[in-house]
Order: sequence, then C-alpha cells, then structure tokens
Amino acid sequence: MVSEFQLKNTEFAQKCFDDIRAMSKDGLGVSRQGYSPVETAVLEYFKKIGQQLNLEIQTDKAGNVWMTLPGKNRDLPALVSGSHVDSVPQGGNYDGLAGVVAALTVAKWMREINYQPERDYTVLMMRMEESSWFGKCYVGSLGMTGQLTEQDLSLKHRSTGKTLRETIQECGFNPDELTTGKPVVDLSKIAGFIELHIEQGPTLDSSDVRVGIVTGIRGNIRHKTIKCIGETAHSGAVDKQFRHDAVLAFSELAYRMDCLWDEWLKAGKDLVFTIGVVHTSATSAIAIVPGEVTFCTDIRSLHRETLDGFHALLLEEAEKIAQKRGVKFEFDQNIVSEPLAIHGELMNHLEKSAQDAGLKVRKVPSGAGHDSVVFGNLGVPAAMIFVANQDGSHNPHEKMKIEDFIQGADVLWNAVKDFPG
Amino acid sequence: MVSEFQLKNTEFAQKCFDDIRAMSKDGLGVSRQGYSPVETAVLEYFKKIGQQLNLEIQTDKAGNVWMTLPGKNRDLPALVSGSHVDSVPQGGNYDGLAGVVAALTVAKWMREINYQPERDYTVLMMRMEESSWFGKCYVGSLGMTGQLTEQDLSLKHRSTGKTLRETIQECGFNPDELTTGKPVVDLSKIAGFIELHIEQGPTLDSSDVRVGIVTGIRGNIRHKTIKCIGETAHSGAVDKQFRHDAVLAFSELAYRMDCLWDEWLKAGKDLVFTIGVVHTSATSAIAIVPGEVTFCTDIRSLHRETLDGFHALLLEEAEKIAQKRGVKFEFDQNIVSEPLAIHGELMNHLEKSAQDAGLKVRKVPSGAGHDSVVFGNLGVPAAMIFVANQDGSHNPHEKMKIEDFIQGADVLWNAVKDFPG
Repeated sequence: MVSEFQLKNTEFAQKCFDDIRAMSKDGLGVSRQGYSPVETAVLEYFKKIGQQLNLEIQTDKAGNVWMTLPGKNRDLPALVSGSHVDSVPQGGNYDGLAGVVAALTVAKWMREINYQPERDYTVLMMRMEESSWFGKCYVGSLGMTGQLTEQDLSLKHRSTGKTLRETIQECGFNPDELTTGKPVVDLSKIAGFIELHIEQGPTLDSSDVRVGIVTGIRGNIRHKTIKCIGETAHSGAVDKQFRHDAVLAFSELAYRMDCLWDEWLKAGKDLVFTIGVVHTSATSAIAIVPGEVTFCTDIRSLHRETLDGFHALLLEEAEKIAQKRGVKFEFDQNIVSEPLAIHGELMNHLEKSAQDAGLKVRKVPSGAGHDSVVFGNLGVPAAMIFVANQDGSHNPHEKMKIEDFIQGADVLWNAVKDFPG
Repeated sequence: MVSEFQLKNTEFAQKCFDDIRAMSKDGLGVSRQGYSPVETAVLEYFKKIGQQLNLEIQTDKAGNVWMTLPGKNRDLPALVSGSHVDSVPQGGNYDGLAGVVAALTVAKWMREINYQPERDYTVLMMRMEESSWFGKCYVGSLGMTGQLTEQDLSLKHRSTGKTLRETIQECGFNPDELTTGKPVVDLSKIAGFIELHIEQGPTLDSSDVRVGIVTGIRGNIRHKTIKCIGETAHSGAVDKQFRHDAVLAFSELAYRMDCLWDEWLKAGKDLVFTIGVVHTSATSAIAIVPGEVTFCTDIRSLHRETLDGFHALLLEEAEKIAQKRGVKFEFDQNIVSEPLAIHGELMNHLEKSAQDAGLKVRKVPSGAGHDSVVFGNLGVPAAMIFVANQDGSHNPHEKMKIEDFIQGADVLWNAVKDFPG
C-alpha cells in the first residue's frame, strides 16, 4: 500500500540525488568538503528549487541556508527539518543529503497540494557536519549556535594544512562571529528540529521495517593526532633489546585496546573504538626501525561515563607501553562531542503520526552523531528519522533504496502535517 | 700510541667526509639516492682525487668506479677495497662512505710514502646499495655481477613511481647488460675484497675496542608491499561484530609477530624483525573504520633456515587473523638476500695484520647486509672491518668518531701492506 505522497514525490527526490551526485562525483564516490565551492554549488542548486517553490530564503552567518514556507500564524515558532549537504572524502551520496531532500520534498508537496501549515515550516541545509578534513564535526551547526572555539578554528586541513578559520573566510563568512557563545539565529523561534538521515549501520536493513525512529545518539571523544615517538635504527644491525620501535609499540596499544573493547562489550557497555588513520613518517623505509607513528582515535558511546572511562584507559595503556618499550606517546587535546538523549515528546509524535498514517517504523539507537545533537543540547526539541541503507556509509559503496527513502520522507510529512499548531 | 698513518691521514679523511656531507645535505641528515645526480657528483669528487693520485680510473657498465694503483706484478689478481657511496633518505653521512674514504686514504698514503704494492690495489666505489627507495639492496654490485633480474628492474621508486630500469637508464647505463647472469667485470682478477664499514649496532661502541673484524653477515627476506584489505564503515554506527577493521587486523599481526620473535630469541635463534612503513589509504579518515592498510616487513638472520621459518610463520599468522576477522592479507613477491659466511682466511689475515701492528680489534657479527655479500656469494674472498659508531645508522643522528675511523683505516692499511704477493 503506497501512499499518494510516495507515488507523486519519488521522481523529484531521485532527480535531486542524481543531480547532486553528478556535481560532486570523485572516483567511485562523492566528495563535498564543508565550506568548499562544491558545497556552495549544492546549496545554490537547492536555492533555485526553493525560489521556484516561492520559499523565503535566508543564509545565516555560518553559511547555512534556511528556506521557509510561511504558516498561517507567523508568530508561532517554526518547525524545522533538514540536515547537512557536505560528505566525507569519496563518501556516499546520501549521508546528510537524504535529510535535505526529504525536507525539501515535503515543502514541494505542500505547495503541490496547496497546503499551508499552522506554523512556518523551514527547510534547513547545513554546512560541514563531517569531521574528515579538519577532525571536528558539526562545524556548520556549532557555528550557527556560536559554539565554535578559537582552538576549532586553528585546526588544520589534513592534506593542505589550511586552517578551518581560513577555509570559512574564503567561503565568505566571518569566523569571529561564530565563537561568541551566542547563536547567530534565534533558537526560541524553533518549535522542533526533525532530521531524516540514512542509518549508518546494518540494523534497519536486516529487517522488513525500513524506517526507524531514533532513541538516542552516541557521542564521542577523539584524538585527531597521537604520535608514538621511538628511535630510528638500522633494521638489521640493531638487536631487539636495543630497539624502540614505534610501529610495534603502536600495534601493542591498538591490540590491547581491541581486547579491552571486547571486555567492555561483554560487560554490557555501549562502545565503539576506531583507529581510522595510521602513518609512519615520510622518511620511514623498509630498512629502518620506525621512529615515529602518527594515528587518530575515535571512541563513541551513548553514555558520557563510558566515553570518559575508555578514554582514560587509552591514556593509561599508552603510558604502560611507553614505559615498557622506551617510547613516548604524545596526545593532542581531545575533542568531545556529547551524547544526546532524543526529545521524548517529539520522538513519540514521530512514532504516533507514522502509525496513524499506516507507516511501519521501529525504534533504533543512532551510533553516529548528527547536527540534531547540537540543537538538542541547546534545549531545542530534536528528533530523528532513520532510513535503511546498504553497505554502510562514509564509503563510496553506500546505497539507499529510493523506495525506503520515500517512506521515510512520508513519515516526515505526516509528522509535519500533524504537528500541533 | 697513535701510528704515523693515523697522525698523517686524519685531516684528509675528515675533509672528504665534510665535503661529501655538504654536497648531499638534506634536513638533519644526508640523502644520496643510488643512480641519482647527487650520487654521480660524489663519484666525480673522488675521481678528481684519484686523478691527482695518478690512479687508473675505470667505470664499469653498472656505473661503479674502479681506481687502481698499479702493483709491481700486474699479472697478479688485485686486492680491492671500497664500499657504496649512496645513502638512505635523510640518513647519516658514514654508512658506505666510510669504506670508500678508508680505501682512498690507503691509496693516498701509498703515494705519499712512495709505496708500491706487489699486486694492484684498487679503490672500488659502488652505486646503490641501499634499498630504501626501490626495496632492493646491492643494486650496484648485483648489476656489476650481472645478477639483476627483470623483476628487480621493474621495481618502482617509493614516491615517484619511476622504475629502477628507467632510473639506471637516465643515469646513462644500459640495464639490459646487468641481467645476463654474467659479471661485467672479471672477478677472477680479484684476489680479495675488503670492505670497511661503520657498525650499525651498538656493540663496538659499548667497549674500548673500537674496530671489529666481521665474522658473518645477516641475510634477509623482505616484503616491500603487504596489503591488509578489510571493509570501510562508519566509525560510530557500525558495531564491533559487523566490522572488518584493517588497522586492528594489522595490529594483531604485528603484535603476534613481536611475541613470536621474543620466543625465537629465547630459543637461541639469530633474528630481527621490522615493519618499517605502515600507511592507511589516502581516503582514510577519523570517522571511517579503515578498509585498507599497506605495510612492509624485513626479517633478518645469519641463518637461511631461520629466515625461511619466520617468514612461513608470518604467512601462517596472517592467514589465521584473516580468517578470524574477515579480512584479507595480500603479500607481494618476497625478496631474498642470502646470509654470508665471511672468507675465513681473509678474516684471519685482517686480524693478524692488525695484531702485528699493535692495533686492537675484536670479532663481531654483522647484522646488516653489505656489498661484500655479493662478492662472497660468487666465490670472491670477502671480509669486513667494522668501526664503532654512535646513535645507530640509517638515521640523521649517526655519528662516528674520526679517531675510531682512522684506526679502522689503519687496520685496512696493514692488511693491504701485509697481503701475500
């Protein structure tokens, strides 16, 4: 039983996805770096559609774009829906983009059926949510809420070395307006924020229910750059007892954390641990005992105390190995993203309006962080809709079936339609 | 008690080292890539000195330079001494170079004291001994003896991707003449090859006896490129049981081999094991479970059966981890360098002539491979003199005291002087 909404909107959504993929293709996947020309081009593409739909378009000081369909009572706080338009390097097309296309599809549908909501409905398209390039996530939404720090702005692009500050400036925005602690938009005028997103794990895809209502979002503690400093030496002439091998010290730490992770899972903790990047130095060679290894870590959990506990253990194990092997681990300042408890009332509203419309949903936790966390932590009611997704995300093989997507957008449409005026 | 040889030759040797360092400085260390313009410039520098000493200078088809001081009986096979002039990237100044300077100092001394040896005495300066750039060692001496292979020539430069074949050609030599299996020089005209080299471990430097006579040379089995292929995934949304993390699989293998290495040392085996280079792929990022790690391995031992045994264990452990973690290890063709038993008679001659001259020496094994291996394996009597060295080699902090060096050169001088006519 496919609804009229689903029947009439699939083609529009598919075209949006295809067009944006063509604009940002990079190898097998897509690359849309935050605050880059390609990200700006994607926003321009959607702004054109917004103009055709006669939406009110505004760009905030952090470069995020708000496109509003006016409600009957303009004094009421607006209902906002959207997500981010950037991607990881050579990532998939749907992470972030699905939430923007869903929100826009709802606005287009309202115009098509001449529906005016009680309160304003706003499509929000955010910049730079992904941390791949600078090691910091939610930059667009944190900037909009004045929560970037000087330290964030001095983070360097992982390959060009350009700072985040320079990158935002070159895109035409003033970074100093984004670190004041005060939002550059009026959050009291937001009644709720609903973000549709592809699920980035395999849970929904392994069942018949293709749409999820999110119950909580994992936070993380990260180190962008950890150095293990040992001592270079000849790989044939220096015997084991004289070595301070940085690769073997790194490997012991990684293996040890892997074992501890197993123990924590057995003890019932919610935890994932990733070392995404590892490099020996530029002068490393086959005949040299490696003197330096650089790597990053990402610890995630639904619970702050689990994050703190496993992070403390990482420092502790590193210190033990450093002592034993005569090496040194240098940790940069860690970056914390808080876990989020989803807004209960809004979550229940999403579930109920879906059920009333005969749409099947199930409750799922979110392993990944999202811009919703930023809104939620500032007291804006925030909730999320997940859509089943194949082959994971943050990789070029990410897939999402358009029929799953349009069901998720239908859940959003019903939640917007039924939202109390 | 410092000999006249040592008193009169220190300054000359020091100037050679200083001049060559200035020609090849790169950051804190020196870089002299084999078959590169800087290597050629170093050879030209020494050829000028050879001309001043009225030596007969020849360049063989592999680009190595032979400078001969004619003996009384030119029908006798020559006594040859020398080493290589190249270095690892940002390496130390003395690895290789010390043997060339020592051999040349002896020739210069002969001219200075008007000494003509019974047989020809030849200073041999070889190209590309280090494997850092192409993963293959002894290229200069293997080429000279016709032992390079097509596979060797197709090895690629680790950063430019240029093949070894192209590199040799651009230097002005014909690689096809170096793969025939037949030496491009007449080995039967070499009575013995003596190579002076800095020790690349800490053994001599930890004692009062600063000069060593080498008893054997470690061989190695190497893999230049091993790939661990897992599966990229979102670092927050994919739980442990769904992951195929290439970094954690690599780390388990490295840690496991490290433990096995300890066991083999306890069992009395001669063994060193090094993973000199590790890199995740170019698209790796902090928020992505790593899908690919590339690394190299270097196993060294005085005994071929230890090399083969530990190499087999590496493949076996990799396979176990691959099974367990759902990843794949792809090994490139391994490269073998045979261990060498030093020529006993020549070794004893070195020791005896040193003792007769009142010079202190002690016997030491060589952990590293040297061009002497190539000569020795073709039946040319080969032996080595080691000089104490600080802070290891293959790194920019490599140090050698000039007073230790000149003692080593003195040992060489006495061995040449006393060599049976």
